[in-house]
Amino acid sequence: MTSIDADNIECRQHQLICIDGQGYIDRVVDETDAEFETVRQEAVAGDKLISLNPDEYILPGFIDLHIHAPQWPNAGVALDRPLNEWLDVYTFPMEAKYRDVEFAKRVYDDLVNELIANGTTTALYFGTIHNEANLELAKACVRHNQRGFIGKVAMDNPEETPENYRDASAKVAVEQTEEFIHQLEELNQTAMVKQTPVITPRFVPSCTPELLKGLGELAAKYDLPIQSHCSENDWENGFALEHYHKRDSEVLDQYGLLTDKSVMAHGTMLNQSDLTRFKQRGVAVAHCPISNVFFGDAVLPVSKLLQQHNKVGMGTDISGGYSPSLYQNIRQSVISSRMLHQGVDPELSPEERGTDNQQITAKNGFYLATVGGAEGLHLKTGQIKAGYLADLQVVKAPLTKFEDESLDQTFEKIIYQATKHDIKQVFVRGQVAKG
Amino acid sequence: MTSIDADNIECRQHQLICIDGQGYIDRVVDETDAEFETVRQEAVAGDKLISLNPDEYILPGFIDLHIHAPQWPNAGVALDRPLNEWLDVYTFPMEAKYRDVEFAKRVYDDLVNELIANGTTTALYFGTIHNEANLELAKACVRHNQRGFIGKVAMDNPEETPENYRDASAKVAVEQTEEFIHQLEELNQTAMVKQTPVITPRFVPSCTPELLKGLGELAAKYDLPIQSHCSENDWENGFALEHYHKRDSEVLDQYGLLTDKSVMAHGTMLNQSDLTRFKQRGVAVAHCPISNVFFGDAVLPVSKLLQQHNKVGMGTDISGGYSPSLYQNIRQSVISSRMLHQGVDPELSPEERGTDNQQITAKNGFYLATVGGAEGLHLKTGQIKAGYLADLQVVKAPLTKFEDESLDQTFEKIIYQATKHDIKQVFVRGQVAKG
Ligand SMILES: [Zn+2]
Ligand SMILES: [Zn+2]
Repeated sequence: MTSIDADNIECRQHQLICIDGQGYIDRVVDETDAEFETVRQEAVAGDKLISLNPDEYILPGFIDLHIHAPQWPNAGVALDRPLNEWLDVYTFPMEAKYRDVEFAKRVYDDLVNELIANGTTTALYFGTIHNEANLELAKACVRHNQRGFIGKVAMDNPEETPENYRDASAKVAVEQTEEFIHQLEELNQTAMVKQTPVITPRFVPSCTPELLKGLGELAAKYDLPIQSHCSENDWENGFALEHYHKRDSEVLDQYGLLTDKSVMAHGTMLNQSDLTRFKQRGVAVAHCPISNVFFGDAVLPVSKLLQQHNKVGMGTDISGGYSPSLYQNIRQSVISSRMLHQGVDPELSPEERGTDNQQITAKNGFYLATVGGAEGLHLKTGQIKAGYLADLQVVKAPLTKFEDESLDQTFEKIIYQATKHDIKQVFVRGQVAKG
Repeated sequence: MTSIDADNIECRQHQLICIDGQGYIDRVVDETDAEFETVRQEAVAGDKLISLNPDEYILPGFIDLHIHAPQWPNAGVALDRPLNEWLDVYTFPMEAKYRDVEFAKRVYDDLVNELIANGTTTALYFGTIHNEANLELAKACVRHNQRGFIGKVAMDNPEETPENYRDASAKVAVEQTEEFIHQLEELNQTAMVKQTPVITPRFVPSCTPELLKGLGELAAKYDLPIQSHCSENDWENGFALEHYHKRDSEVLDQYGLLTDKSVMAHGTMLNQSDLTRFKQRGVAVAHCPISNVFFGDAVLPVSKLLQQHNKVGMGTDISGGYSPSLYQNIRQSVISSRMLHQGVDPELSPEERGTDNQQITAKNGFYLATVGGAEGLHLKTGQIKAGYLADLQVVKAPLTKFEDESLDQTFEKIIYQATKHDIKQVFVRGQVAKG
């Protein structure tokens, strides 16, 4: 089951997915193809055939386009607190703990294992300010065969960060970001699955202009991906307006942080000028539908972004979002879009209640979690077709089938019902990561 | 872990929950109680002690206050279709299939097993118009040790029901409802866990006035629970206004269908006069937050209902809702209430965007799924305390614990993360149902 565009999927049965020595899909052979039987026999002879049970299906692995690895111990905690309390009492103190490398090792191993179990084959991570801990995250990705994109978080603004958890200066933050780039280069020399460093200003409020400038230059120097948050909610959106007299996206742009390798989380408060800027620069939005309910103040109009061809993928935003599962986030993306479309207030008449933003479908959400994420990271993955990375999940149909159903219905049931327990095997670059 | 009121829970460790021969909690003994050791030794000597692992917790079993058993094969299917298409193409044709008793047997056995696996110890079911199939549902409940409240669906209005799936007449519908009451009486003579018949007009649009009248009389005659849908969405709310020139709740009331044993599903469009009527009559609302996203047109203001002491519990509404899990519905109830509170449209200013309905917490949602449901059905269950039915679920903490956490945090993690795979044992009336 694979997306063919944002609105449509293709479900085919009885295929052979042939994987080459580099972990790419070499070709997909249909049962009706003349060579089917020959190819199958060859695979059997070479002891290379992996067969599925009749109730199992292959989907592309998911791409989590926004997740804070250090916040994993807080997943599901304190979601009813206001943003400032959530940051000051739960999030920053938790992140500060990663100066303890042993703690980092335990958490990151558990997290990467959990994400793989949930079918996430690629993740774009925020780490912490601590490179030793960030390196442990990279090692956990290597160990579990996950493709990690990992950012040393940069945050030096004393007015918006706690004293025990901030970079000593803009200069130090830039130097340590550069150091982490080299640390990953070294790690990659022996890694089966490569890990990519990501330039990671936490967000405009927690960075000084000097830091933003330094990070923009570093991104250009190494031609690296960039991640941050942009117009996540009223407060963040307002911060740039108040302190820079500019839109949040303009501030990032001015420092060279909006490129076609940039992924900006949330964006619920992006206006049309921001979206146009994103499109011109090739910036992707990481839609985090569960997190947005708690900290986003409104719903990102995903259908609008898809229609105007803004790049958009899907993130869990652990622990602003509570679930490590992209299935759960796909469901919430459908739900949130429906609530944006139809409105929520029963005291209004149907005409006043809704907006003209269209709801998205399970297929749209699936597209975000696969193709959308791949585009945001310039990866040839997220689809099952020749030339694409063999990042795959094998999913058992979660519910009993009582009568014939269409593959479309099976797809919907998988999207709405699957938990990690239904994911039987996971492959990254053709290598077993789970199963 | 048990609710002590709508806002608060009590989490205690190292307790002995003593269950009597009738399946009621006889007493709860704290470690600090003088008799603790004696009671424990006695239980050990009688080979009656069930001990939990350190990462396991006991919660009351859940009460699903609204579920359509026959729609189970459609769970997660066709949710993006409009209501009339969903009813005519998916729902009614599926329900019509239950004239085939073998089909009913297979589906109902699977469904009840799935609900028990998800920690649901009591369920208030809509069946179909077919008593033979409804009886299979009751037998499945007996077999799996679930407390079922089961309604033979009554629907005779030829204008709003399909020809191949409607009661032949109001008279026949009432007679068959009465027949089902006697069938359950007979079944209960040998059942460990009793099954209760429920008077079940599908909803006002699908019933003739004659049928509503007959069912109201039957409910009075046998003093039975009543279930239906009330003001589920704009269309249903409007139907009574158009055809009866009355509110939906007034029509039901006029025929004696609003009593303190009535449970009305959804109610997103109930106005204050309806809610006051519900309170006067003692009617409970079954809040179905996932279903309401797809078919409810707006969000039920749960915090308002709690504040003004309207009875309210939680339902899955399979298959208007896709998930058989009340955990998932609790999460969505929190999410929906937040979206009602803060609004959804980023184009509005924060002041215009929200409403004055307060968000609910995970604890409120848990209260609905336990105490709220129990009150709706007049059951002594849903709490862990002396005199209450021993309907319990043993839940393993779903995530790894990396450091000390409060029991409140553990509670939140269970509510936000648990799947059926984390539910290790389920007891109904002190008897093992799962585990
Ligand atoms: Zn974030
Ligand atoms: Zn219903």
